Amino acid sequence: MSKIKFGSCLPVFGNCSDRFVNDGYDEESVSLEEMIRRAGRVEDLEGVELVGNWHINENNIYEISELLKEVDLEVSLLTPDLWTQGKWGKGSFTSYDKDIREEALQEVKTVMDMAEEVGCNMIDLWFGQDGNDYSFQLDYKWAWNQLVENVRECAEHNSNVDICIEYKLKEPRKHCIIDSAAKSLLLVNQINKDNVGVLLDIGHAWAALENVAETVALLDDADKLWYIHLNDNYRSWDDDMLVGSVHTIETLELIYWLDKVDYDGWYTLDIFPYREDGIRTAEESIEWVKGMRKVLQNYGKDRILKVIHSGDATEVSAMMREMLL
Amino acid sequence: MSKIKFGSCLPVFGNCSDRFVNDGYDEESVSLEEMIRRAGRVEDLEGVELVGNWHINENNIYEISELLKEVDLEVSLLTPDLWTQGKWGKGSFTSYDKDIREEALQEVKTVMDMAEEVGCNMIDLWFGQDGNDYSFQLDYKWAWNQLVENVRECAEHNSNVDICIEYKLKEPRKHCIIDSAAKSLLLVNQINKDNVGVLLDIGHAWAALENVAETVALLDDADKLWYIHLNDNYRSWDDDMLVGSVHTIETLELIYWLDKVDYDGWYTLDIFPYREDGIRTAEESIEWVKGMRKVLQNYGKDRILKVIHSGDATEVSAMMREMLL
Amino acid sequence: MSKIKFGSCLPVFGNCSDRFVNDGYDEESVSLEEMIRRAGRVEDLEGVELVGNWHINENNIYEISELLKEVDLEVSLLTPDLWTQGKWGKGSFTSYDKDIREEALQEVKTVMDMAEEVGCNMIDLWFGQDGNDYSFQLDYKWAWNQLVENVRECAEHNSNVDICIEYKLKEPRKHCIIDSAAKSLLLVNQINKDNVGVLLDIGHAWAALENVAETVALLDDADKLWYIHLNDNYRSWDDDMLVGSVHTIETLELIYWLDKVDYDGWYTLDIFPYREDGIRTAEESIEWVKGMRKVLQNYGKDRILKVIHSGDATEVSAMMREMLL
Amino acid sequence: MSKIKFGSCLPVFGNCSDRFVNDGYDEESVSLEEMIRRAGRVEDLEGVELVGNWHINENNIYEISELLKEVDLEVSLLTPDLWTQGKWGKGSFTSYDKDIREEALQEVKTVMDMAEEVGCNMIDLWFGQDGNDYSFQLDYKWAWNQLVENVRECAEHNSNVDICIEYKLKEPRKHCIIDSAAKSLLLVNQINKDNVGVLLDIGHAWAALENVAETVALLDDADKLWYIHLNDNYRSWDDDMLVGSVHTIETLELIYWLDKVDYDGWYTLDIFPYREDGIRTAEESIEWVKGMRKVLQNYGKDRILKVIHSGDATEVSAMMREMLL
Repeated sequence: MSKIKFGSCLPVFGNCSDRFVNDGYDEESVSLEEMIRRAGRVEDLEGVELVGNWHINENNIYEISELLKEVDLEVSLLTPDLWTQGKWGKGSFTSYDKDIREEALQEVKTVMDMAEEVGCNMIDLWFGQDGNDYSFQLDYKWAWNQLVENVRECAEHNSNVDICIEYKLKEPRKHCIIDSAAKSLLLVNQINKDNVGVLLDIGHAWAALENVAETVALLDDADKLWYIHLNDNYRSWDDDMLVGSVHTIETLELIYWLDKVDYDGWYTLDIFPYREDGIRTAEESIEWVKGMRKVLQNYGKDRILKVIHSGDATEVSAMMREMLL
Repeated sequence: MSKIKFGSCLPVFGNCSDRFVNDGYDEESVSLEEMIRRAGRVEDLEGVELVGNWHINENNIYEISELLKEVDLEVSLLTPDLWTQGKWGKGSFTSYDKDIREEALQEVKTVMDMAEEVGCNMIDLWFGQDGNDYSFQLDYKWAWNQLVENVRECAEHNSNVDICIEYKLKEPRKHCIIDSAAKSLLLVNQINKDNVGVLLDIGHAWAALENVAETVALLDDADKLWYIHLNDNYRSWDDDMLVGSVHTIETLELIYWLDKVDYDGWYTLDIFPYREDGIRTAEESIEWVKGMRKVLQNYGKDRILKVIHSGDATEVSAMMREMLL
Repeated sequence: MSKIKFGSCLPVFGNCSDRFVNDGYDEESVSLEEMIRRAGRVEDLEGVELVGNWHINENNIYEISELLKEVDLEVSLLTPDLWTQGKWGKGSFTSYDKDIREEALQEVKTVMDMAEEVGCNMIDLWFGQDGNDYSFQLDYKWAWNQLVENVRECAEHNSNVDICIEYKLKEPRKHCIIDSAAKSLLLVNQINKDNVGVLLDIGHAWAALENVAETVALLDDADKLWYIHLNDNYRSWDDDMLVGSVHTIETLELIYWLDKVDYDGWYTLDIFPYREDGIRTAEESIEWVKGMRKVLQNYGKDRILKVIHSGDATEVSAMMREMLL
Repeated sequence: MSKIKFGSCLPVFGNCSDRFVNDGYDEESVSLEEMIRRAGRVEDLEGVELVGNWHINENNIYEISELLKEVDLEVSLLTPDLWTQGKWGKGSFTSYDKDIREEALQEVKTVMDMAEEVGCNMIDLWFGQDGNDYSFQLDYKWAWNQLVENVRECAEHNSNVDICIEYKLKEPRKHCIIDSAAKSLLLVNQINKDNVGVLLDIGHAWAALENVAETVALLDDADKLWYIHLNDNYRSWDDDMLVGSVHTIETLELIYWLDKVDYDGWYTLDIFPYREDGIRTAEESIEWVKGMRKVLQNYGKDRILKVIHSGDATEVSAMMREMLL
C-alpha cells in the first residue's frame, strides 16, 4: 500500500465544550499556540486544519504559519467561518438577509486567498447553518440556487484554490441542505467548475445512513474525492469519537477502498475528545488506521477483491474473522 | 389548486403478509380480480399500479385491461418484477451472474412494451434487491456502472415509455444502491436519456432521512419528478402506513410543494394495510390529502409563501396552529 | 378538562449556545435577572425551573426568590448541577473518583434544602454525564448500585423534598445509564422511597423511541409521574424544539393521556430556541397545548376512548382528520 | 472461560421469506425434517428452538423429539405461536377480543406442558403482535394489566416450566408494548413469580438502542437473564444477520459480560439467512463467538476489568487494537 499522510483538526487538541458545559471539559482553556504545539508532539501527524474565527484571520495567519513550520506541520486545509458565530445562525450563503450572504462571500474569498498564501490551496465549505429547523421555513429552490451561484462565484474568485463541499445531515441546523455525498455531487456538477469537489467526513456519512466505502467509490468515480475527515459515531449523531471504535468493519472497508481508488489526499482526524487527552486520542486513531492497513495488506488485496466478487456473506464473514480474531 | 388524480398500488386491497405471517393477515387470499374490483369501489380513485409476477404478465395483461375498463380505472404505471422472486435475491441489474442480469433486462423490456400497449407509457424500476447486506460484499463501482448501462439500454429499447427510478434506503437488501433522491438524480443525469426520471415514494424519502418537500423541489428543478407514492412511517422503516398519520405537518408541506411546482402526475397510495380494511384505508388516505389541500387553500398560498420567506420558526408555528387547531 | 399550570426552563429566555457557537446565537449575553423578567412577560406562565451553577446557589437563592415574587412566578423545580461543569464529565454519582461522588452528593443535598426553603419541594436528578461513551468503559453493575445507594442517601437526607429522576438516552454522554422511563422505574422501585419519582421529558422519550402516551400510562400506574418537560424533536436527538412542531399527533395523544390520568403537576417548557425569540417561543408552545386541549374537549373524551377501544386504524384516522383538518 | 452450549432457531436452516418474496429466497421449500437434519450437521450445535404452528404441535411433538435424538440435538426452548397467524394480528394476550385472549392463553398452556414433556422446561413469550401501529389505538393501561394477569395465569399453570419474556421494539407491530429489557423486568417484577424471566435477543436490544453488555448486567442483577438470542443488525431494524458482522466490538463486550456474570444458558442463533447457506451461517456465527472468547481469554479477564475501571477511552482503544488488529 502507498504511503499516506495524517492530518488533524485542531479541536482534537483543545478544550471541547458542548451546550451544557459551555466552558469546556478541561479545567483550563487552551491557547491556539498550545493546540498547535500539542499537534506537533504527535508522531505521524503532518498537517493541521484551521478554521476562520476560531483559529485564523488575516492578522495572525503569518504567525501561525511560522509556528507550524517550527513544529514541522503543514496546513492541510483552511475552513472559512460560516458557522461559529450567531450571525450565521439562519444561514450563510442561503441567509434570507442579503448582507449576511455578502459577508459570507467575502469571508470565503478572503480565506481562499489565505489558502493560496499558506500553500495548502484548498478550503472547506461546510454549510452547517444553511438549512432549516422546521417545516415551511425554507424556500428550497431559492436556497439551492443561492448555493450554486455563490459557490460558483467563489470558485471563479481564485482558480488556484480548490473548494471542497463538506456535507452533513444536521447539526447545528436540524436539517442541512447539503446533507449527503450524492447531493454534494449534484451541487458540484451543477456548479461545473474544476476547482470544486467534495470533503468526505465519514462520521457525517454514517449519520446520513451512508455506506462510507460506497461513498468513496461514488465520489471517486466523479474525480471529486478530495479530502477525508476520520472519526466514529453511533450513527444517529456526529459524535466525533475515536477512529474504529464503533464501525470497526466499515472503517476497515473504507481504508481498503481509499487504497483501491488511489486516494492520495490527507487522512485528517476530526474528533472531539471532550473527556480524553487530545494527543493520546490522535495517536490511538492513527494507530487504528495503520493497524487496519497492515491487516489488509497481510490478507492481500487480490484475495479481498475475490471475496467481494463472490458476493457471499459467509465468505465475507470468514475473511473478517481471519483478519480480526 | 388544480385538480389532482389519485391512484393506488394493488396490495392496498390484498391480503398483506410479512416474514412472520407468511399467508397474510386476512383469513382468505384475495384474487387479482377481487383486488381490482375493490379498488373500483373507492370513490376518487382513477388508477392502479400493477407489478410483474404478482399481478401482470404477457398472458393476462389484456384481460386485466378489460377488467380495469369495466370498473373505470386506468393503469397508472407498470412495475417489472425485479424483487418478488428468490432469483433476484442477490441483485437484478447488478447481479454478479450475467444470466440474471440478462433475464432482468428482458423482463424490463417486456414490461415497457406492455406499458405502451396499455397506454400508461410509464414503468417503475425499483432496485430493492440491488445492494449489499454486509461490508466487503459489493464492488460498488462495478455495480453503479451496471445500473447506468442497463437502465440506458432499457431507455433506448422503447423511447415511447418513460422509466422512473424508485429509490429506497433498504429492504429487502440491508442497503440498496439507489437509496436517495440525490443518488437517483445522479444516476439519471449520468444515463442522460429524456425518458428516465424519478419516482418519489415519500415513505422511502423519510426512511432515508430526507425532508420530502425539499426532495420535491430538488427533483422538480431537474424536471424529473414524474410519479409519487404516498404513505407514512416512523422514519426508520418503510412501514407503509395511512397517509398523514405520523408526519402530519411534513405531509402538509409536501402537498403545498407539489402544488407549488405544478406537479400533475398521479398521487398514488402505496400502503400495506396488514390489519385494516383496504377500501377504508384508501378512502381515509385520500380524505387526508383532500383535507390538507383545502386547509392550504383556505390559508392562502401567498400567505404561506410569506411565512416561508420570513424563515421565522414562531411565525411558522402560528401558521400551523391556525391551520390545524 | 381541569385547569393546568405552565412552567418553563430558563434557557428558553436566554442566549443558547452549542458546541460550534460557544458564545450563543444572540448578540449579547442575557443576565439571569433578564431571563426571569422575560419569563414574567409570558402570559399563562406561572413558574420557572432553576439549575444549580447556571442559575442558583446558596448565595443568590433569596434574591432570586424575591425577583420571582416581583414578576409573579413560582419556582417549579430546582435542578442540582451534575452536568454543567467539566468536573462531572466522567460521571457524578457514578464517577470512579470517590471525591467527585461525594461532591455530587453534597451538591444534591444542598439543593434539596434550598428546594424546601423556596417552597417547590422538588428537585430533578438528571444523570446526563453518568454513562459511557465507548464499550468496555463502564462497570455497569457497579454503576447501577452507585445510583441506587446515592439517590437513596439523598432521599433520606430530606424527606420533605421529592426527587424526580430524569432519564435521557444520550447527550452529553454517548450513552446514559438512566435512559428510559422503564429503567427509571426500575431504579425508583429498587430505591424504594416515597420521595423518589420520575420526570418525563417528552423529547427524551421520543429520542429513546418511546411512545410518550404509553410512557404516561406506565409511570402513572406506579404513581411516579411527577413532572413533565415539553418540547419536540426529530426523534434521534434532543432538539428541544417548539411543542407540537414535529410529533403533532403524538403530542395530542400525550395531552389526552395526561388529562386521562389526572396529572396535576407542571407543564414545563424545556426548549432551546437558538434562533428564535424566547418569549414568542414560550407563547407559541403554550398556545399549542391549549389549542390541543380545546380540540380534544370538543371531540369529547368518551368518543375518543371509544375509538381507542375499537383498535381500528381507519377509525383513528377519521377521528384525527375531524380534529385537525 | 467455562464451556458454553450453542443452540439455533430453525429458520436458520429453512427457506426464509419476507413481504416481497413470499415463497422464500430458495428455489424449494424446506421440510421441518430437513431443517432439523441440517441443524444436526453443524458441529458444536447442541440444541434447537421450536415454534408453535411453524414447527410443533401436539400431534408431531413426539416424532420431532425422536428425530432430534437421532441427530443428537436437544430442544433448547419452545415458543408458543402468538404471532405467525393472522388471527393474532391485533394482539394475543392484549387483543380487545376476549376469545382471542382465551385462545392465546390455551396455546401457551399447551406448549408449556409440551416443554415439560420434551424436557427443556422453558418457553418463550414474544408479544410481537401486542402493541399498536397508530396513536390513539391502544388503551395502554388496560393492555399492560392484561399482560400481567395473563402471564401470571400461565406461570401458575405449570410451575415446572420457566417462562421467558422476549422483548422487541417493533415488528410486526409498529410498536410493541414489551419493547425493552427494562420494561420486561418491570413486567416480570410485577408478575412476581419465580418461573418468569427474560430472553435477551441482542438484535432486539440494539434496535431498542440498548447497550447489550449493560443489558446483561441489568438482567443478571435481577437473576432474570435466562436465555440469549444471537445475531446482528444495523441498529434500526431486526435484520437477523450473522453474529459479529456489524457490532463487532459490542459483541465482544457482550461475550465478556456473559462470562463475567456466569451466564450458563444457551447461546442460541436467531438469524434469517435469506440469501445464505444456513449451515455455513450457523458455523460462521459459532466461529465468531468462539474466536471472541479466545481473544478475551488471551488478553486476560483481569486486565480487561482494569481497563474498564480506568474509564479511559484511549486505554479502551489501545486494548481493542491489541485484541483485534
